[in-house]
Amino acid sequence: MTHRVGIVGAGQLARMMAQAAIPLGIEITVLAASAEDGAAKVLPRVIVGDPDDPERIRELAGKVDVVTFDHELVDPDLLESLVEAGHAVYPTPSTMRLAQNKRLQRELLTSAGFPAPAWRSARSIEDVLAIEELHGWPVVLKAVRGGYDGRGVWMPETPDDAQDVLKTASQHGIELLVEELVELSGEIAVLVAGSPTGDYAVYPATETVQRNGICHELYAPARFPPSISRKTEAMALEIARLLGAVGMLAIEFFVVDDDVLVNELAPRPHNSGHWTIEGSGTSQFEQHLRAVLGWPLGPTAMRHPAVVTRNLLGPADGSDPFLRIPEALARGDAQVHWYGKASRPGRKIGHITAYANTIEDANLAAERGWSVLAGSTREEVGK
Amino acid sequence: MTHRVGIVGAGQLARMMAQAAIPLGIEITVLAASAEDGAAKVLPRVIVGDPDDPERIRELAGKVDVVTFDHELVDPDLLESLVEAGHAVYPTPSTMRLAQNKRLQRELLTSAGFPAPAWRSARSIEDVLAIEELHGWPVVLKAVRGGYDGRGVWMPETPDDAQDVLKTASQHGIELLVEELVELSGEIAVLVAGSPTGDYAVYPATETVQRNGICHELYAPARFPPSISRKTEAMALEIARLLGAVGMLAIEFFVVDDDVLVNELAPRPHNSGHWTIEGSGTSQFEQHLRAVLGWPLGPTAMRHPAVVTRNLLGPADGSDPFLRIPEALARGDAQVHWYGKASRPGRKIGHITAYANTIEDANLAAERGWSVLAGSTREEVGK
Repeated sequence: MTHRVGIVGAGQLARMMAQAAIPLGIEITVLAASAEDGAAKVLPRVIVGDPDDPERIRELAGKVDVVTFDHELVDPDLLESLVEAGHAVYPTPSTMRLAQNKRLQRELLTSAGFPAPAWRSARSIEDVLAIEELHGWPVVLKAVRGGYDGRGVWMPETPDDAQDVLKTASQHGIELLVEELVELSGEIAVLVAGSPTGDYAVYPATETVQRNGICHELYAPARFPPSISRKTEAMALEIARLLGAVGMLAIEFFVVDDDVLVNELAPRPHNSGHWTIEGSGTSQFEQHLRAVLGWPLGPTAMRHPAVVTRNLLGPADGSDPFLRIPEALARGDAQVHWYGKASRPGRKIGHITAYANTIEDANLAAERGWSVLAGSTREEVGK
Repeated sequence: MTHRVGIVGAGQLARMMAQAAIPLGIEITVLAASAEDGAAKVLPRVIVGDPDDPERIRELAGKVDVVTFDHELVDPDLLESLVEAGHAVYPTPSTMRLAQNKRLQRELLTSAGFPAPAWRSARSIEDVLAIEELHGWPVVLKAVRGGYDGRGVWMPETPDDAQDVLKTASQHGIELLVEELVELSGEIAVLVAGSPTGDYAVYPATETVQRNGICHELYAPARFPPSISRKTEAMALEIARLLGAVGMLAIEFFVVDDDVLVNELAPRPHNSGHWTIEGSGTSQFEQHLRAVLGWPLGPTAMRHPAVVTRNLLGPADGSDPFLRIPEALARGDAQVHWYGKASRPGRKIGHITAYANTIEDANLAAERGWSVLAGSTREEVGK
């Protein structure tokens, strides 16, 4: 029986996988950028090195039964060479390639008939204007891979603004695509687990609330008509099948009135699934490990009628919410998840989850704990 | 804020504490008898050494904010010297002393008015006959501390049998007590958490089913009239207050028709509380860490109407249930907890927990998973 999993990356996703691995006797080894990474701090088996260093990643592969990831930033060619050398790598290199490239995602999903925002490759201002002509300003310009200056999305409101983005992107060698700016009713993420044997398990649709492009709150079930949730769940399952996804796959949707549009995907445990630790029959972290090992998938139904998760970002005042964990625990029923990272303003450093019989009660419980952790400057935290 | 906990012992209780520590950012260091111990395998901070070696235990105390335990077999004098040197040690040395000595437990609890089986110190055959005269054969002889030849309890049926036990115990330097053999309706264990500030939190009474002196099944809620469960919960809370217990305290009760008798206590997370991982608002492992750190205690109410846990012992046929984990997971909704130990016949190597709306459904789900893990010779496992 295989039960040794290697994870490239040692952030909070790997840390929560490490936690999920203990009761199943699954041995985790991480390839960490630093010994101070969140997962590296709680594991006995840590390789410190660059995930793009072929030697380090081969060292990891040599110690485990399957290689998986807590981020997408790994060279797919390197992963293909691992597969050719006989290593199990899940998600597959082709799924990883897709995850790294927003244009490839759009091409695959729109050619398969999934609804998406109007889009095209943005090679020149004419491409931008073609979208603008139908949908107006502002348009959305996105880096196809990565970004620069810590940004990957721009919303120019004039042709000149758009030209500036195109020019700077070109200087950085960044490929762009242009999309209509969709007027959202809200956002949904759906998690699907896929196994190497072609089994799939879909989780209940999660409503995600973003603030400044960062996921801030999760509501399960989503606070939309059930017909919308069911539609996203069915679509997510189809997309997982289309990709032959192995492991967790998160699909993000835009909700526009009664319609849904596919936004993007991530082939791993995902921020939108953090509520599953307390809220589902199988947490997304356990599920990912089971899936990549080829073990049977677990039940995905909710354990409680309503679950709410709030992300915790490092407060702007530089204070350390870690010191406030006991106080937050004193405030009630919410579960604190600490990522083992130093607090810096705006950095994701933890989350808090509450469950209850109603979404309102769960939200109140999550807010109570969260506001203590976030501290006195909490109004600024979400900015 | 203190958040570094040192655990003396690195078995499954420490392993499950290690799991509970991750989301709270609590740093665990264990003093392990072997690097192959269950908790040592999943932690980056491990000291290997004898728990009775003053140097090793001082090394542990020097690295952490509070010292706690996953077993009672530590010299209380050594612990007192740690306290005198300024270290926080919970449970306290006096509670540890009590836990190691069944006579001290009986003296304290009967003098405080708690009901117990008829008992006395067994210094000679006259002591045995004094109990036998009122309650008949067999009587129960118990080692006050530890035991010999792997046994600590004997049930002689004649004066000659009793003499043999007294003689052999004397040769081994073992102090005995004698008790009436109670005709049980069943057994209950109640967990209480105590904090250094004098706060206490009691868990719902758990029914424990033993086979051959080893706890085999847990039912929460207990399948007795609620009045009996409430009585044990109230008594357990009183006992925790009497002791000034800090950390988890498990109190075992005998149920005799509508009455309850106190059997014994253990000042730590306890086998009878394993169901709390899935079944309670706060697992006993998280609660113990919070308690010994002086953090606020968490809610103890049940998360589901019914929870059943079954212990898994190494099968008699020498097969390894670890290899059957995926198959057990395929059989349904039960959660597997693996202790990271090699399987040997009769050794506790894991447990499995299921929750449902009724105790019958939870029991069936636990049994389904358990029977796969226990394997084809499962009839022998519980023997």
